[in-house]
This record gives sequence, C-alpha cells and structure tokens, in this order.
Amino acid sequence: MIKTEIPTPALLLDLDRFERNIAKMAAHVKAVGKKLRPHSKTHKCPEIARRQIAAGAVGICCAKVGEAEVMAASGIRNILVTTEVVGPEKIGRLMGVLDRAPETMVVVDNAENIRELGQAMTRAGRVANVLVDVDVGGRRTGSEPGEPAVHLGRLVTLETSLNLRGLQGYAGHCAHIEGYANRRKTSHRWMSRLMKTRELFEKNDLPTEIVSGGSSGTFNIDCDLSGLTELQSGSYCVMDLDYRRIGGKGGGDYDDFEMALTVLTTVVSVPTPTMAMVDGGLKAFSTDKPFVPEAVEWPGVEYSWAGDEHGRLMAQEGRLPALGQLMEFFPPHCDPTINLYDRIYAMRGAKVEAIWDIAARGRGQ
Amino acid sequence: MIKTEIPTPALLLDLDRFERNIAKMAAHVKAVGKKLRPHSKTHKCPEIARRQIAAGAVGICCAKVGEAEVMAASGIRNILVTTEVVGPEKIGRLMGVLDRAPETMVVVDNAENIRELGQAMTRAGRVANVLVDVDVGGRRTGSEPGEPAVHLGRLVTLETSLNLRGLQGYAGHCAHIEGYANRRKTSHRWMSRLMKTRELFEKNDLPTEIVSGGSSGTFNIDCDLSGLTELQSGSYCVMDLDYRRIGGKGGGDYDDFEMALTVLTTVVSVPTPTMAMVDGGLKAFSTDKPFVPEAVEWPGVEYSWAGDEHGRLMAQEGRLPALGQLMEFFPPHCDPTINLYDRIYAMRGAKVEAIWDIAARGRGQ
Repeated sequence: MIKTEIPTPALLLDLDRFERNIAKMAAHVKAVGKKLRPHSKTHKCPEIARRQIAAGAVGICCAKVGEAEVMAASGIRNILVTTEVVGPEKIGRLMGVLDRAPETMVVVDNAENIRELGQAMTRAGRVANVLVDVDVGGRRTGSEPGEPAVHLGRLVTLETSLNLRGLQGYAGHCAHIEGYANRRKTSHRWMSRLMKTRELFEKNDLPTEIVSGGSSGTFNIDCDLSGLTELQSGSYCVMDLDYRRIGGKGGGDYDDFEMALTVLTTVVSVPTPTMAMVDGGLKAFSTDKPFVPEAVEWPGVEYSWAGDEHGRLMAQEGRLPALGQLMEFFPPHCDPTINLYDRIYAMRGAKVEAIWDIAARGRGQ
Repeated sequence: MIKTEIPTPALLLDLDRFERNIAKMAAHVKAVGKKLRPHSKTHKCPEIARRQIAAGAVGICCAKVGEAEVMAASGIRNILVTTEVVGPEKIGRLMGVLDRAPETMVVVDNAENIRELGQAMTRAGRVANVLVDVDVGGRRTGSEPGEPAVHLGRLVTLETSLNLRGLQGYAGHCAHIEGYANRRKTSHRWMSRLMKTRELFEKNDLPTEIVSGGSSGTFNIDCDLSGLTELQSGSYCVMDLDYRRIGGKGGGDYDDFEMALTVLTTVVSVPTPTMAMVDGGLKAFSTDKPFVPEAVEWPGVEYSWAGDEHGRLMAQEGRLPALGQLMEFFPPHCDPTINLYDRIYAMRGAKVEAIWDIAARGRGQ
C-alpha cells in the first residue's frame, strides 16, 4: 500500500522520525541515570508501547483503567495507572488488569479511596502496588505535598493488601511553558514539592523506590532532580505543534524530538482560485489549542476550521493545491488528535510499512 | 444495567427527550409540507437513523462515503452524501455503497469531478444520482450560485451515467446566529441564492425534484422557502449547549428541542474543599466552542478543562460533589463529542434501556 491509496482523513506516522525519537529519549534517560515509563495516553497504541519497552522503557503509564485493560490484554507489563481508581465499577475492572499484570501500580490521593481499594484487594485476595499522588501545582489530582502526603502513605502501609512503592507528581502545567530557562525555573520550583515530600517519606521510613513524574516538555529539566527515579514523558515519540513552539534548550524551536505525526487529507473542493477545501475538520484534528493545523511542505497555504468535516485552505492565486491533491498537516495537539482515529499508518517514505491499531482509543474509562 | 454501573466517561441519551425531539421534527416537516433527510454526521449511529426514518424521514444525509458505508451496511437507504466524492479511492468505496443502496445520491461542485465520477460509473456499469452543490455563503464547498451552477448541472446531464436530481445548499454559517429574527433575515438572504439557482434550473429544464438544505438552527426558517423540498437538520435529535444559546422564535432560549445528550463522569479526586476533579477532559468533550460543559442539576458547580483526561470543578465550600459522585454534563457541541465515543447508553430514567453502537464514529473518510 502506498500513500495515495490511504482513505483520508488518516493519521500518519513517519517511522524514521519516530524511531529516532524513541532512540533519543532512551539514550537520554540512560545517560542521566533515570528510568523511562512513557505515557501511553499520547498514542493509545500497543505496538508503540512495545517499541518503547523494546528500546529500554521499564513499562508504560496509562491514564485510565480502560487503557490499562487494552495494554495488558496486548501483553504490555509494568503499567502505572496515573489517575485515581475510584468506585466499585473502576476497581472491579482493575481486578481484570491485575489478573494479567499483577505488578500494575495505581495512584491514590484520598484516605477514603485507600480504604476502599485496600478492602477490595483483601476481598479479592490480591495485593495492589500503590504510589501516593502529590499535587505539584497543576491543580489537578494529588494530595497536598509534605505531611498530608506522608499521612496518606502511612494509611497505605496500614492496608495489608496495598503495597506502597513511592510517589507520583505530574507538573502538567509546566510542560508547555515557553522558553527553556523559564520552564526550567518554574518546573524546578514546583517539583521541589515532590522532592521535599520524598525526603519526608524517607525520614518516616516510607518507600521511595519509585518517584515518577515529568513530561516531554521537561525531559531535560526533571532529570536534574536526584530524587526522581523515572520520567513519564509521552508526546516525545510523535511530537506536535504545541511542543515545537515552547522553545528548546539552545534557544529557537524545541527540536529535541522530530515531528513524526501528520494528518493526511484530500482536497475535495476548489471553489475559488484562492480557496480550497480539505476533508479534515473538527473531527480530524483536536481543537483544544489556540492555533490550527500547519500544512507540511505547502508554504503560504493557511488552514482554518470550516466545520466538523472540512478545513479551509487559503493561498495566493497559483499557490493553491489542485482538486484531489493529498495534503499533510501537523496537528496542534497530538494526544487528543490520535484519540480520534482507530489506526495509524506507519510510513516509510511514501510506503505504508504497517497499520497499527490505536486499540485504546476512546478507552478513557 | 443502571446508571451507576456505566463505566465513565460515557455518552448518555435521555430516551424520553430524544423521542419527543424526533416526533416534534417529524410533525413540523409534515405540517410545512417538506421532507426530512436528517444529517447523520451528528449521531453516526445506525439505530438513531432507523428511528428517524421510522418517524417519517425520507432517508439520511452522510457527510462522507465512510459514514455511508456504515449506514448502508446497517440497512439504511436513501442516503445523500453531502461532501464531494473526489479521487479514485473515494469513488471506489462509493461503488460499494451503491452495491447495497443504488439510490444513494452524491453532490458535485466541479467539472473535473463530474467527468471523473461519470466515467467511473460508466466503467462500472452504474448510474449515480447527483445534486449540484451550491455555496450559499458558508465559504465551504459548492459552486457559485446562478449560471456557474447551471453550467455544472448541464455537465451532469451530459454524463450518461449520472442522473441529475436537483440541488443542495447548506448555510452552515447561519445555523448558530444568535437571535431568531437576525438568524431568519440572514438565512433567507443567503438561501435566496439557492432559490434563484433553482429558478434558473427550472428555466433551463434541469431537474429540481430535490432541493436539499437547512440546519437545526433554521428548521423553522428554511421551511418558508417554497423551492426547498427537504431539510437536512441533524443536531435537533440530541441538542447541545451551542444550539440552546442561539435564541428561539418566541425569544428566550432556543428550546424547540430538548437537551437529550449528556456525558456521564465520576468525581475521582477532591483535592480541596472547593475543587474536585472528574474523569472527563479534552477526550470526553469536543472543545471547538468557546464555552465549556455545563453540570446538570449541580447549580454553582463550574467546569473547566484540566487536560486530556480531567475536568476541574469549582464550587463554594459545602456545594462540591463528593468523591465517587456521578456527574452529568451537557456537551458544548454534540457532533464532535459523539464522535469521541463507540457507544451511547440509551437511558430511560436511571435505567439503561439499550446500548447503541456509534458505528460510523471515526469513519470520516
């Protein structure tokens, strides 16, 4: 199969770039003495997870039990579920994941949930591995750092069916700060909450064997934190416009990793000499960023949203693609864009080398 | 199955409201002497299409061949594909749709595409039913109105394997204009382009048996156009926040149809007495509108985006939902939200009456 035979809109992965991204991150974590547990919420694709692990990752992160169900069923091991597992329905499905992968870890940030989880594991004759989730300023999930987290850690150790392994702290709000120096300063300030909590854990003889956190935006910043044992970076393997613009260590664009992900569309209408329509709109790209898809190799062609199924291209006369022209675009935000597709075409140049299932797409439960 | 057993985030349909919406639109088109060909890009669900047809719709619209493939395979007939079918890959798949549903119609807006389509049909020994697509100011697909559209109509009649049936004009840019009077005035102004083109078609002895257009926002406006034979409204069956705010005929909210669609989430973290996190974020709701999901029956609880998998709820102390609480939200925009889910839970009160496949989800090719 070649590119022109792919039904559009379609998600494409440039394998050369993707493989270099995987190798580069693997080399980086090795050099700085950290482990890598890449976040699979980015790609939701068991084949990509397998390749990350083959390159040295210790396992993967999943945002939800639903993703962990898919990954475990595909033979992926050493999963960390990074969102709290609350209520009998979700805990019930966690048991199914533990059937396949008993080493699976979950995070906790609440005394009631620790009790619920511990009792459910006891009833099932199981032991669950647990990290205490600490809010490092993202105002999302997570306990307050310091003593409140230590208190939760103690509660975990009191549950005979829970096995405390350490801490998680995800500073999502730092991942996209523009300018490396500013990002570094801000990230270190917030992540110090996790590091101080780690010290308190040590003082209180609570395990700190795993301290997990970090993003693709801070992969070369979080590695300075001696107490952090592993990075959770996700987007690095495919990249997107949002990461490219945050600025790299050496100034200029963030180009540590390559733009490996595109959406392939077709020009289906050319109503005027300066306007063409492609068959990809709000259902082909995520729309949560303030900027739009960028045409690859079509300078001067500007994309704008034109509804659920259409994108509008504007260009000077004579610069517009013709009817039927295939057009590739870099997506604004990789994770929710990938989540719109059931498969990804793994490309070697213009050839489709493989088609991989995005098996955990829509499995956010 | 009952509501508390549904894995969250999940898409819920209130059947009582949905059934009233379907019945109300059916009665409306009957009363005004029009036909209804509801747009299935809203719901992508064969079971909903079946119920629309059972209530009197003449068929359905599909945005893309990919959707038509799914609908035709589910036994749905009288499909209009509302986006131009361009290139051998898409035309090849259209042949498969015609195998099951030879009456399927497509739209054209380009001479080259008319030739390509005609030749492909001739080679396949088929006849395709065709509408000329006219731009009524939406700056999307469609020929210029008037003579250019007549020219395309003539080209269609010259193709022995194409059967011209009439016209399509979709004024998507009028659907969400706030205030009924303004929406009415603007819509009539733009749709007059389609009506004048229809008159020109008649003068030139080109068929006008089908003149298709209209949205849920203009369902009680487009019906004034005597030349329009059918409405393409889609969102009316489920509704969303975007439609509710555009204003109704009698002033106040647009309440002609009821809010039947919600996203069910679970509170998975309550980090502070005024902040809670639910398990639905950018992957659980479409984000293409400038406003956010609205909590059903939780006044004073405000949602904000908190990443791919999380939503942040803020409320005064004592007004916040507890850990594990199920929370329903009205989505900002129904079509791309439904497109995130594989199934919809059809609810009768708190009971799950059925689970329907959103079989054309992601089938935008």
